[in-house]
Amino acid sequence: MFVHDTEIRVRYGETDQMGFVYYGNYALYYEVGRVEAIRALGLTYRQLEEAGTFMPVVRVESKFIYPAKYDDLLTIRSVVNELPDRMIHFDVSILNENKVILHKGKVTLCFKNEEGKLVRAPQVLLQKLNSYFD
Amino acid sequence: MFVHDTEIRVRYGETDQMGFVYYGNYALYYEVGRVEAIRALGLTYRQLEEAGTFMPVVRVESKFIYPAKYDDLLTIRSVVNELPDRMIHFDVSILNENKVILHKGKVTLCFKNEEGKLVRAPQVLLQKLNSYFD
Amino acid sequence: MFVHDTEIRVRYGETDQMGFVYYGNYALYYEVGRVEAIRALGLTYRQLEEAGTFMPVVRVESKFIYPAKYDDLLTIRSVVNELPDRMIHFDVSILNENKVILHKGKVTLCFKNEEGKLVRAPQVLLQKLNSYFD
Amino acid sequence: MFVHDTEIRVRYGETDQMGFVYYGNYALYYEVGRVEAIRALGLTYRQLEEAGTFMPVVRVESKFIYPAKYDDLLTIRSVVNELPDRMIHFDVSILNENKVILHKGKVTLCFKNEEGKLVRAPQVLLQKLNSYFD
Repeated sequence: MFVHDTEIRVRYGETDQMGFVYYGNYALYYEVGRVEAIRALGLTYRQLEEAGTFMPVVRVESKFIYPAKYDDLLTIRSVVNELPDRMIHFDVSILNENKVILHKGKVTLCFKNEEGKLVRAPQVLLQKLNSYFD
Repeated sequence: MFVHDTEIRVRYGETDQMGFVYYGNYALYYEVGRVEAIRALGLTYRQLEEAGTFMPVVRVESKFIYPAKYDDLLTIRSVVNELPDRMIHFDVSILNENKVILHKGKVTLCFKNEEGKLVRAPQVLLQKLNSYFD
Repeated sequence: MFVHDTEIRVRYGETDQMGFVYYGNYALYYEVGRVEAIRALGLTYRQLEEAGTFMPVVRVESKFIYPAKYDDLLTIRSVVNELPDRMIHFDVSILNENKVILHKGKVTLCFKNEEGKLVRAPQVLLQKLNSYFD
Repeated sequence: MFVHDTEIRVRYGETDQMGFVYYGNYALYYEVGRVEAIRALGLTYRQLEEAGTFMPVVRVESKFIYPAKYDDLLTIRSVVNELPDRMIHFDVSILNENKVILHKGKVTLCFKNEEGKLVRAPQVLLQKLNSYFD
């Protein structure tokens, strides 16, 4: 299991007139969470793309428990529970400063090459993740 | 069953560097779909809010089948399969100009009053929906 | 002079907790205005890109007069006052349903080829615009 | 003169299909810059709003010099050149990791009370800024 936490400060432009984070903006938070998780492994998603691997999202599930508010400092916890093969799954929890879980998400991404063909997870990513799973 | 179609033109700012609509922007399309569905009933969501009913999203499921591209004219099909009580569910399909389904979403919203308390679906909405369910 | 009007319905996700359209979202409205203006000429910006012309924005000026609100049906008026050469300028006015001007913008875009080199406005665009300037 | 630097990592969802940050997303960067500048003074914009002062944007000028790219770590430099009275002006420079200026912005905000009436800059803000101007 690989777990990574990163922090995000809610921007004004991410709120809506209900006074909370607009529901569509959680996808940006998932993205920051997984990108920083990959960076913590010693890789960057930018490098993966430059080496010809693209990771489009194929499935998302989101559960809105409590609203996040402007200027909240959120913790985005990204968990990879199994070594990726054709897909990679991120389980995301979003917590506020009191460690209350506000939101949960599950994001599944596939791997594509530059021609848009489905491929397996690249070796460079598997090597970095391997030590967390044995 | 209540079914409503509305059209959306993909904006440049909604794409990302992969050349497709960013996965987080589908939530905006769901929103336009359900708002126009409610307008077609002879109500507006703005009126519902002004009368004290707020509809925060509590759950979303999204399935990305084919990517949507810049300038595509998409059909957002919003379906309400059952009369709402404490929740309302929208089943969303997003189709391109060739009527290929690119994306599917399920969005569940609850009803809150101005104090943020959970309430039942307002009568004015139920009255408009009633004729579609018998 | 070439003038084109297009309508936009304000989305919930475009508002912020002040209850108005977030100031950063006007750029999306300018974009829809100029893209529909180009479409009205019998071209599309997508075709321009596919033919190798890219139009990045180089300068924007925005004046916020009155706030736009959720569900407002806005008119985006895009005006081209002179034939483009190395740059094209759009003067944008955003009006509400009572024809009150809420917002003004000036957007300057340049023309680049696929290598990212600055070029002149493409002939296909000049030909379409010519009849409005003589 | 009050100068404050803050860093932002470009998100994937902030790019567009040209491969660069979408021109409308710089407004979010200005916002983060000025919000963090205010926080560095020992205040938060959230506190200002809670105390009844709102700061809507009334004018923006943006100059796009070089494009910002995905995953770039940008420095947002926010400068206040004069003590605010009825308006506050932020001069923003956005630099990449090589300290090249990619973008310049000027943002003017006014002060409103809870009834939406124009007011002067609140004392609490002036007190914090005073030591930078004498």
